[in-house]
Amino acid sequence: MSSSDIFIGETIGTAVLILLGGGVCAAVTLKRSKALNAGWLAITLGWGFAVLTGAYISGGVSGAHLNPAVTIGLAVQGTTPWADVPLYFVSQLFGAMIGAVLVWASYYGHFQAHLTDPEITGATTGQEGMIDKASAPAAGPVLGIFSTGPEIRNTVQNLVTEVIATTVLVLAILTLGLTKGVGVSGIGALLVALVVVGIGLSLGGPTGYAINPVRDLGPRIVHALLPLPNKGGSDWGYAWIPVVGPLLGGLVAGGLYQLAFA
Amino acid sequence: MSSSDIFIGETIGTAVLILLGGGVCAAVTLKRSKALNAGWLAITLGWGFAVLTGAYISGGVSGAHLNPAVTIGLAVQGTTPWADVPLYFVSQLFGAMIGAVLVWASYYGHFQAHLTDPEITGATTGQEGMIDKASAPAAGPVLGIFSTGPEIRNTVQNLVTEVIATTVLVLAILTLGLTKGVGVSGIGALLVALVVVGIGLSLGGPTGYAINPVRDLGPRIVHALLPLPNKGGSDWGYAWIPVVGPLLGGLVAGGLYQLAFA
Amino acid sequence: MSSSDIFIGETIGTAVLILLGGGVCAAVTLKRSKALNAGWLAITLGWGFAVLTGAYISGGVSGAHLNPAVTIGLAVQGTTPWADVPLYFVSQLFGAMIGAVLVWASYYGHFQAHLTDPEITGATTGQEGMIDKASAPAAGPVLGIFSTGPEIRNTVQNLVTEVIATTVLVLAILTLGLTKGVGVSGIGALLVALVVVGIGLSLGGPTGYAINPVRDLGPRIVHALLPLPNKGGSDWGYAWIPVVGPLLGGLVAGGLYQLAFA
Amino acid sequence: MSSSDIFIGETIGTAVLILLGGGVCAAVTLKRSKALNAGWLAITLGWGFAVLTGAYISGGVSGAHLNPAVTIGLAVQGTTPWADVPLYFVSQLFGAMIGAVLVWASYYGHFQAHLTDPEITGATTGQEGMIDKASAPAAGPVLGIFSTGPEIRNTVQNLVTEVIATTVLVLAILTLGLTKGVGVSGIGALLVALVVVGIGLSLGGPTGYAINPVRDLGPRIVHALLPLPNKGGSDWGYAWIPVVGPLLGGLVAGGLYQLAFA
Repeated sequence: MSSSDIFIGETIGTAVLILLGGGVCAAVTLKRSKALNAGWLAITLGWGFAVLTGAYISGGVSGAHLNPAVTIGLAVQGTTPWADVPLYFVSQLFGAMIGAVLVWASYYGHFQAHLTDPEITGATTGQEGMIDKASAPAAGPVLGIFSTGPEIRNTVQNLVTEVIATTVLVLAILTLGLTKGVGVSGIGALLVALVVVGIGLSLGGPTGYAINPVRDLGPRIVHALLPLPNKGGSDWGYAWIPVVGPLLGGLVAGGLYQLAFA
Repeated sequence: MSSSDIFIGETIGTAVLILLGGGVCAAVTLKRSKALNAGWLAITLGWGFAVLTGAYISGGVSGAHLNPAVTIGLAVQGTTPWADVPLYFVSQLFGAMIGAVLVWASYYGHFQAHLTDPEITGATTGQEGMIDKASAPAAGPVLGIFSTGPEIRNTVQNLVTEVIATTVLVLAILTLGLTKGVGVSGIGALLVALVVVGIGLSLGGPTGYAINPVRDLGPRIVHALLPLPNKGGSDWGYAWIPVVGPLLGGLVAGGLYQLAFA
Repeated sequence: MSSSDIFIGETIGTAVLILLGGGVCAAVTLKRSKALNAGWLAITLGWGFAVLTGAYISGGVSGAHLNPAVTIGLAVQGTTPWADVPLYFVSQLFGAMIGAVLVWASYYGHFQAHLTDPEITGATTGQEGMIDKASAPAAGPVLGIFSTGPEIRNTVQNLVTEVIATTVLVLAILTLGLTKGVGVSGIGALLVALVVVGIGLSLGGPTGYAINPVRDLGPRIVHALLPLPNKGGSDWGYAWIPVVGPLLGGLVAGGLYQLAFA
Repeated sequence: MSSSDIFIGETIGTAVLILLGGGVCAAVTLKRSKALNAGWLAITLGWGFAVLTGAYISGGVSGAHLNPAVTIGLAVQGTTPWADVPLYFVSQLFGAMIGAVLVWASYYGHFQAHLTDPEITGATTGQEGMIDKASAPAAGPVLGIFSTGPEIRNTVQNLVTEVIATTVLVLAILTLGLTKGVGVSGIGALLVALVVVGIGLSLGGPTGYAINPVRDLGPRIVHALLPLPNKGGSDWGYAWIPVVGPLLGGLVAGGLYQLAFA
């Protein structure tokens, strides 16, 4: 795979992943959206089909990693050369930032309406609005559209949850090639998308399942940079957990694959 | 592909698409429907399976574009001859109008019950009923079953949202052929259908995701023509946005494909 | 295909279809079920996966018609010999009755609890309970677990809705063979199952989408025969519509196929 | 298949199955989970995608039984040697216990918050909290995250429901090979996963559809051993039903296959 294939595929694929994934969070959160309060199942299906779309668009070009944890797992497995890993990471982060900007562009009017509404911003009451201060002290009312955050803030616990969830994801991707026919029929990305829905439904409850360092970090950077009114903090104190946890999960999955399946 | 294949496939396929797509909007909206208030996820899945059904029925005949934005994207890509484009457009618009009439036939009794109910029509209160006057000034209470409308009316914003959403759709279709096996296994239409569910969940919040000029224009014409009591206006002031936005999205996707993937 | 293959495949396949299809209706309806009030989307997905399961079990044996409307359509198309049609019909009806009995066996305790609860049976109030007398005069409180019924009772309207919905179903089945790869990859039954979900979401609102004569008639006969307390009438006045409507839809789809696709 | 392949595949596959399956029960049950009260459809889809993930991970190694009822059915069919059956059982039970421990690790903080909250534990009121004493006398407030329990406690009825539901599952698996193309395209596990969603939606209402002896027994043992505060009893009086019922279902399906399909 050429460097330009990796760059183009991962940038565009990850941009689409984050556009649709962040998009569903905007859709269920922002005032006057048609999808307001559509529920947890809608969010997890939205992220799953975001993976599906990004993966099919980039699969034939860059292999559709779209996630540094997947790239690390594939490198441990020997599928992806270690020398390509940095380019994958950079392209994925760049794509994730583009995707987050596109969410903002798609929902610009709704962000404005949401963030300037006194009931939500708490301007008239002195309260911070939708967010529970105790559980997310530094987070503003729309950070959840960009990045993940824990319901119960506890470093070890949050890290463990992210490691376990990402291990499942990456192990499922590393073992796909073992199932006869998956490579031939072109359904690999569909299966991975449904695995992501499953991980969201089952393991998303505590931390919101980043399971992908750039899915969390890219949009968080964009949240910090965008000129959103009343946006609140970007919760940088938590930001390393959804980066380190998924990377560890990718390593665990890669090691488990080498031990048990290779 | 012969002209008659294009005409038959696109007319029947688009009719089925709009029958099922408009049908789910009727199902969740109209008084005394068993599906009343089934929610946003039901609507997006309904539209997705509408695409699935229309696409499988017409795929082997006309290639299942069912959408002028898709036709434009495929023409830019070089897959569809530009000379065939007008016939695709006409067949799609004709099919969309047939589909909208079939929605009306399927839900005739419910339209009558819904539109003559004083609580909904506002006959006893002087109010317009379910529709927020400020956000949809010219729209009657059942226009949403036929056509899309924005939650926050802003020309540039609404256009941008439709362009972005359609670009994702058409890019996913143009790149399908790059994934090994998809053409062989016959799952292409399934993947596109799930992409449409994803776009609805993620980018449908602001404008209701037309992402298809005839999906919006065909039923809007039928809404204007049908003898529905108390139907309200057809909101022609907005009608050009879900036509122009998706066409621009198809062009952007075609151009992006040529630049990055060809 | 041998007569015994047809008999075994259609009987077992249709029994599974009705066991799971009637099962989801019991699950969302009966007092103290874990799935109580799970909603319209759950019902339509339940019926779709019922089709999936019945079709994969019987597909390799009898071709998985499971529905006289499908058999008629395939006969018009020339795929199924007219001489086999009666055996298909009898096996499908027999299987549907077995399936309905299995629903009763699976939910026996819940039927008892539901039907002897004074709040539901109306024993203490003289009311008929959950059922709106005007819209379903002869129907008892659990008939909806067995058979369909219209929300607005109007012979022509109800018939038209069933004809349109069944035409879509059968046309989608008749055209499956036109899509390259579907026969090879074994996903035909999955696609049909998702089409059924789509028809339910989009066209199920008025009559509950029988779209299959035996799906309605078989369980209705079982409802009439089972010793359920307070079960109410079997609404025989409506029973011919979900038989004749789908058969007409199968004929329309077969004719449309011959005209437009053959 | 070598003994070590069976052990590794079934242990890891069943661990993933129970991690995601128990995970979705934790996600919708535990205080402060983002998925709290996500509903029955979310639970059934979560279990379905748990099957999907576990099956794809282990399919190429051990054949992905993940369930003693499936192993029994395949042994009766002649696909799996009877001599391998004990190793399958032991590996599946071991994997199920690992999976249940991983659920606890993933939701550790939420278990603590949930079980020490006076409103839920009933500490201040003397009530047992969320659980209806009459219907589940020996069950503590979080047993439902680990094991199944009936809504109406009746030995024969509960057993019949589990036998019927498991028969459908195993019959669908045994007949998969009869459908042309399923083996070639690699979609077998996807189909089984959707069958499991269907069984959950349709037949899960009375007993919570164990349909797998180790899915119920493994986590129940872990529930009994874990140091959870206020966890309540493990309801051992019911424990044999979700073991014996599914095993009988596997035998019935195997016998039915031999009689009708072989």
